Amino acid sequence: MTTYGYLGPEGTFAEAALLSSLGARDGVASLPPDVQLRPYAGVAAAIAGVRAGEVSASMVPVENSVEGAVAQTLDELASGAPLTVIGEAVLPVTFSLVAGPGTTLADVRRVGTHPHAEAQTRQWFAKNLPGVAVTSTTSTAAAAAGIADGSAQWDAAICAPFAAAVYGLAVLAEGVGDNPSAETRFVLVSGPTAPPSASGADKTSLVLYIGKDHPGALLEILTEFAVRGINLTRIESRPTGGGIGDYFFSIDAEGHIDDQRVGEALMGLRRVCAEVRFLGSFPRVDGVRPTLRRGVSDAEYHEAQAWLSRVREGRA
Amino acid sequence: MTTYGYLGPEGTFAEAALLSSLGARDGVASLPPDVQLRPYAGVAAAIAGVRAGEVSASMVPVENSVEGAVAQTLDELASGAPLTVIGEAVLPVTFSLVAGPGTTLADVRRVGTHPHAEAQTRQWFAKNLPGVAVTSTTSTAAAAAGIADGSAQWDAAICAPFAAAVYGLAVLAEGVGDNPSAETRFVLVSGPTAPPSASGADKTSLVLYIGKDHPGALLEILTEFAVRGINLTRIESRPTGGGIGDYFFSIDAEGHIDDQRVGEALMGLRRVCAEVRFLGSFPRVDGVRPTLRRGVSDAEYHEAQAWLSRVREGRA
Amino acid sequence: MTTYGYLGPEGTFAEAALLSSLGARDGVASLPPDVQLRPYAGVAAAIAGVRAGEVSASMVPVENSVEGAVAQTLDELASGAPLTVIGEAVLPVTFSLVAGPGTTLADVRRVGTHPHAEAQTRQWFAKNLPGVAVTSTTSTAAAAAGIADGSAQWDAAICAPFAAAVYGLAVLAEGVGDNPSAETRFVLVSGPTAPPSASGADKTSLVLYIGKDHPGALLEILTEFAVRGINLTRIESRPTGGGIGDYFFSIDAEGHIDDQRVGEALMGLRRVCAEVRFLGSFPRVDGVRPTLRRGVSDAEYHEAQAWLSRVREGRA
Amino acid sequence: MTTYGYLGPEGTFAEAALLSSLGARDGVASLPPDVQLRPYAGVAAAIAGVRAGEVSASMVPVENSVEGAVAQTLDELASGAPLTVIGEAVLPVTFSLVAGPGTTLADVRRVGTHPHAEAQTRQWFAKNLPGVAVTSTTSTAAAAAGIADGSAQWDAAICAPFAAAVYGLAVLAEGVGDNPSAETRFVLVSGPTAPPSASGADKTSLVLYIGKDHPGALLEILTEFAVRGINLTRIESRPTGGGIGDYFFSIDAEGHIDDQRVGEALMGLRRVCAEVRFLGSFPRVDGVRPTLRRGVSDAEYHEAQAWLSRVREGRA
Repeated sequence: MTTYGYLGPEGTFAEAALLSSLGARDGVASLPPDVQLRPYAGVAAAIAGVRAGEVSASMVPVENSVEGAVAQTLDELASGAPLTVIGEAVLPVTFSLVAGPGTTLADVRRVGTHPHAEAQTRQWFAKNLPGVAVTSTTSTAAAAAGIADGSAQWDAAICAPFAAAVYGLAVLAEGVGDNPSAETRFVLVSGPTAPPSASGADKTSLVLYIGKDHPGALLEILTEFAVRGINLTRIESRPTGGGIGDYFFSIDAEGHIDDQRVGEALMGLRRVCAEVRFLGSFPRVDGVRPTLRRGVSDAEYHEAQAWLSRVREGRA
Repeated sequence: MTTYGYLGPEGTFAEAALLSSLGARDGVASLPPDVQLRPYAGVAAAIAGVRAGEVSASMVPVENSVEGAVAQTLDELASGAPLTVIGEAVLPVTFSLVAGPGTTLADVRRVGTHPHAEAQTRQWFAKNLPGVAVTSTTSTAAAAAGIADGSAQWDAAICAPFAAAVYGLAVLAEGVGDNPSAETRFVLVSGPTAPPSASGADKTSLVLYIGKDHPGALLEILTEFAVRGINLTRIESRPTGGGIGDYFFSIDAEGHIDDQRVGEALMGLRRVCAEVRFLGSFPRVDGVRPTLRRGVSDAEYHEAQAWLSRVREGRA
Repeated sequence: MTTYGYLGPEGTFAEAALLSSLGARDGVASLPPDVQLRPYAGVAAAIAGVRAGEVSASMVPVENSVEGAVAQTLDELASGAPLTVIGEAVLPVTFSLVAGPGTTLADVRRVGTHPHAEAQTRQWFAKNLPGVAVTSTTSTAAAAAGIADGSAQWDAAICAPFAAAVYGLAVLAEGVGDNPSAETRFVLVSGPTAPPSASGADKTSLVLYIGKDHPGALLEILTEFAVRGINLTRIESRPTGGGIGDYFFSIDAEGHIDDQRVGEALMGLRRVCAEVRFLGSFPRVDGVRPTLRRGVSDAEYHEAQAWLSRVREGRA
Repeated sequence: MTTYGYLGPEGTFAEAALLSSLGARDGVASLPPDVQLRPYAGVAAAIAGVRAGEVSASMVPVENSVEGAVAQTLDELASGAPLTVIGEAVLPVTFSLVAGPGTTLADVRRVGTHPHAEAQTRQWFAKNLPGVAVTSTTSTAAAAAGIADGSAQWDAAICAPFAAAVYGLAVLAEGVGDNPSAETRFVLVSGPTAPPSASGADKTSLVLYIGKDHPGALLEILTEFAVRGINLTRIESRPTGGGIGDYFFSIDAEGHIDDQRVGEALMGLRRVCAEVRFLGSFPRVDGVRPTLRRGVSDAEYHEAQAWLSRVREGRA
C-alpha cells in the first residue's frame, strides 16, 4: 500500500493536482487499489507527514500565478531533514460558486472561502453579487465541506469545481475567477531519494545560501548557470531569518542533474555558495525541452572530456 | 494639518514605525500639533488612502526577516496610479503577551494574535504555555484591542510592546518571540513627488517588468547595475498575473537617482526592460554609505562627461 | 593646396589606398589640381610628417590579413602628440612580378621585394621559379623603383600591380601571391580634429591603457562595450614598454563617437582605464551598418534620457 | 646525446636563454657532456628542426616588452604539426657596443645590428654617437660574428653582452639600450609530449580559433576563464589568413592543465571555440603562484565532485 499526502481537506486543488499526477482521471475512484490518499490540514503538516514516514510523498502548492510563491512550502523545503521534489503539476485555478440543494444565486448573502480565493473573485462578486459578505476559511475546500456537513455559517462556497463533486454540492456559477489564466503549480515532495532518470524535459530545484555581505553573489550565481547555457524558470529570494538583507534563493533551472551541464553548474555553485541544497530533478509537466546553445549538450561535454584526457597525456 | 496613514489598528508595529520616522519618540503625544495619524484596516486600504488623497503618506510593512516580503505591499506599489517611496523604517519585532487587569499567566487558556506572530512565538508557547489555544486576528493590535474593548474571546494577546501602552493592558511576559533578531522593514509611501535630495546614504526602489520568454533577462538586469558598481540590497520576484513563469522584479539598489551611476543604470534598464517603474530614492534608515569601486563616483562621471565633450569636438 | 602623405615610395599599396580614398580612380593624374601627394620612407616618417604639419594627413598600413597588425603604426598612434584617424581603406594584396624591358621569366635569377611580400609569394616561386634568390628591400615599390632607375641588383621585382604602371615596368606574371584573399587595411591619419559626422556605418578607434596587476581588466573593458551592444572589429594587445605582461589595447569598435551608446561606453572606459586615447570615428570603407540589439539605438537613448529627467523631477 | 636548437647564430639572447634554462650558468662550457646546442638561422628554422626531429627542443623568442609579440613564433606554433611548449625564460635585454681589438669609441662611424636592437638604442646613439650610420643584420649576434670573422662592413656591433664573450670582442660601451627595463620572453618548444607535472606556479599556453562573425566570442572566451578564477598573463590576436577581421587568439593563462579549474576551462573552450590547440603547461620562470579566489582550488573541486556524486545517487 502506498499512501500520498496532500494539502487538504478533500476537494482542494492540491488533491486534484495529486490525482492528475497519479494519472487518476476520474478522481479517487480510479486510483489503483494499493494507493490511498491522506489530506493534511496545512502545508507544514503535509510535509511533516513525509518526514515522519506517514506518507510516501505529499503534493503541496509552491507558486500561484496571481499570489506568487507559497512561502511556507519554500521554507519547509529549504531547511530541516532533506526532502526530494520528484514531480510537479500545474492546474488552472478556476472557481465555482457552490451551495447545498435548494439554494439559488438570489439566496446568497454570505459566502465562505479562503482569502486567496476571495482576492481572486472580488471583481466577479462586485459585478454579479454586490454586497455579499465573506467569511474566511482555512481552505476553499473547507468552505465547501462546511456546507456539506451543515456547520457553515455561509450560504455558498467559492471553491474548486472538483470540490463540488467531492462534497455533492450544487454549482450555482462556474468560472467566477477574475483572471481566467490563473494557475497554481504544485510539487510532489518525497523523502530523500535518487532523482528519476532524465526525461530530456526536466527541471532541477535548488536552494542556494549566499554568505552575508557579498553584493555580487547573485550575479555570480546566475553566471554559473549562464556560462553553461542553463535557463532558470523560477527564482525567489527568501529571508534566512538572520535579519533584513540576509536571503537565500530558491531556484528552478532547466535540465536534469544527470545532464553534464547541470552537474558542472551544481559543482560550481557548491564551490561558490555558502550552502547548496539539491531538492531534485524531475520531468516538467509541460514536456518542454530546453533549447540548447552550441557547446552545452551531453555529447559535446563527453567529446571535450575525451579531448582533455588526450591532451593531458600528450596525445592530442 | 498633515495626516499620515498606517497599517492599523492603533498599536501596530507600523504605527510604531511611523512615529519613529516622524521623530516622535514618546508616541502620539509627542507629535507636532499639525500632524495627525490615521489607521487603516489593511495594506491595500492604507495605500488606497494615499491615492485618494486622504493622507499625505502611509507607513506599510514591506518585508520581515522571518516571513519575507509582504506581497500585497509589493503588488500595490507595482501597479495602479504612481506612488513614491519617500522613506523607510526598520523595527525589531519583539512580542509581548498582554492581558486585561487581574489576568495572570496561569489563567491563559487561549491567546489571540495574527498568524505571522503565532508562527514567530510558537516555540515560546510550546515551552512556557503548552496546550494554549490560538485565535487568529487580522493584526496583533486587533488582538490587544479586543481585550481592551471587552469583545475578545481570548484571554491574552500576543502583540507589539507598544500596543500594551496604547490599549492600557498589562504585560504578562516580554520577549516571547522565538527569533530575537527578527525585524520588519516598513516604507513610507506618498503620492507622486520628486525624490528628496541625495543624502549620500540612499536607496532607490524599482519595479522591473521583463518581456516574456527572455531567459537571460535577469542576468542582463543585474549587469546593468554591476557595470556601474551598484549593489542591490533586495530583490524579489513577483508574478505579473500572466501565468506561471511570468514575473516582475521588485528591487532596492544602493544610491540615489541623482547619483550619476544610478541615473545611467536606470536609463539602461529603461532601454532593456519592457517597463520600469521608479518608486523612489530615499535616505537609508541605517545611514550606511555605499563603498564605491573605482570609476563610479559622481566626480569621475563628470570628468568623463567633460572629456567626452572635448573629444567629440576634437579638443582632446 | 592640400598635401597628403603616404608610406612610399611611389607605387606602394599605401599610395594605391590613398588614391582610392581620394576617389582618384585613374591614379595621380585624376587628382584635383589643388591636391598633391608626398611619399615617406617609412610609417614613422609618414606619421611624423603629419605631426610636423608637412602634410594634412598620411595613409599608412595598420593590419594585413596574413602578417597581422603593423606594430609601428599602432605604437606611433598610441603615444606622442595626438592624431586622428579620419578614414580607412582596404586593398586586396595582389602581387605582380615585374621587370625592365626585354627581361623574360626565364631570365629571372634574383628578385627584389619586401620580406612580407617574399613570405606571401614563397609557394608561387617554389612552384614556378624554384631556386630564385631574393634580395630584401625596404618596400615592394622600392624593388620596382630600383629596376626603373637602374640601381637594382635584382632582375625582377615582386610588387603591387599598381607599381608596374607607376614605374613603367613590364609585368612578367600576375597574381603571384599564395593567398588570393590576402588584404591590407590602411588608415588615413590627420592631426587633431573633430570627427566627421556619423554616417551610420562607422568605426571608432581607441587606445586603452590598463593599470598594472589588474587581471580582470580586459573582461571589464569588453563588458563596457557589450552592455551597450557594441561589437569590436579588431583588438590588439601591444606592450607599453614597461616590462613583459604590461600591455595596452588597440581597439576598433563599431559605431561613431556621436552615437549615444558609443559615447556612454567611452565614458565608462575613461572611468575604469588608466588612460583612454580616442583616435577617431570614421566611415567604414565597407559601408556595413551595425545590427543593433534592442535598447541601444540613439532613439532609445534619447527616450530614456527624457524619462530619467521626468522621474528625477517627480513627473514620471 | 640530447640536442637543443635555438634562434642563432651563437651569441644571441636566445642562446643565453637556453643556457639559463638548462642551468648552465657559465655558458656552453658548463653544459653536461651529453647535451649539445644547435643554432638555427631563424625562428621558422628552429621550429622546423623540432618537427624534423633534428633537436629535442628549440628556444625561440615569443615576446619582447618593447617590440611586442614575435608573430612568427606565434604563427608557427598555431598551425602545422603539433608542438609543445615545455618551458619559458625571460631575459633582460641589455645591449653592448662591441668591436674588434684596437677599435675605440671615437673610431666608430658605422654600426651593425638587427633593426629591433637599432630601434631600442636610438636615443643612446643620438646622444653619444650622433651621426653614426647603421647597417641592418639578421640578428644582433650576426653583427658581432661579422666583426669576428672579418666580413663586416661596420666598425662595431650592437649585441647582447653574452655575444662579446662568444666572439671574443672588446666592449666599447655597456647598457646602450634606451629602456633599462626591456626584456624578452622565450619559450622552449618540443615535439608532442605530456606536460611536466604541475609545480604550483605554472602557465598554460593555448591557441583559440573562433568561428567568423561571432562578435561576442572574445567575451565568451574570457568568461570561461573568469568564472573559474583563472587569470590571463598574455593575449594576442593574430590573423588566420582568411581576411581582415578573421582572428585567432594566442593566450597564456595561469595554472596547469592538471589543475581542475584549468581542465574545466579548457573543456569549456573546446565546446565553444571552433578549435582549441593546447600548446602546453610549464613552470613559470618567475615562480609566481596564482592567488586563488574562493571556490577554485583543487580541494574545492574534488569536494564538489564528491558531493555531486552523492546527490546524483540520492545520498546527499
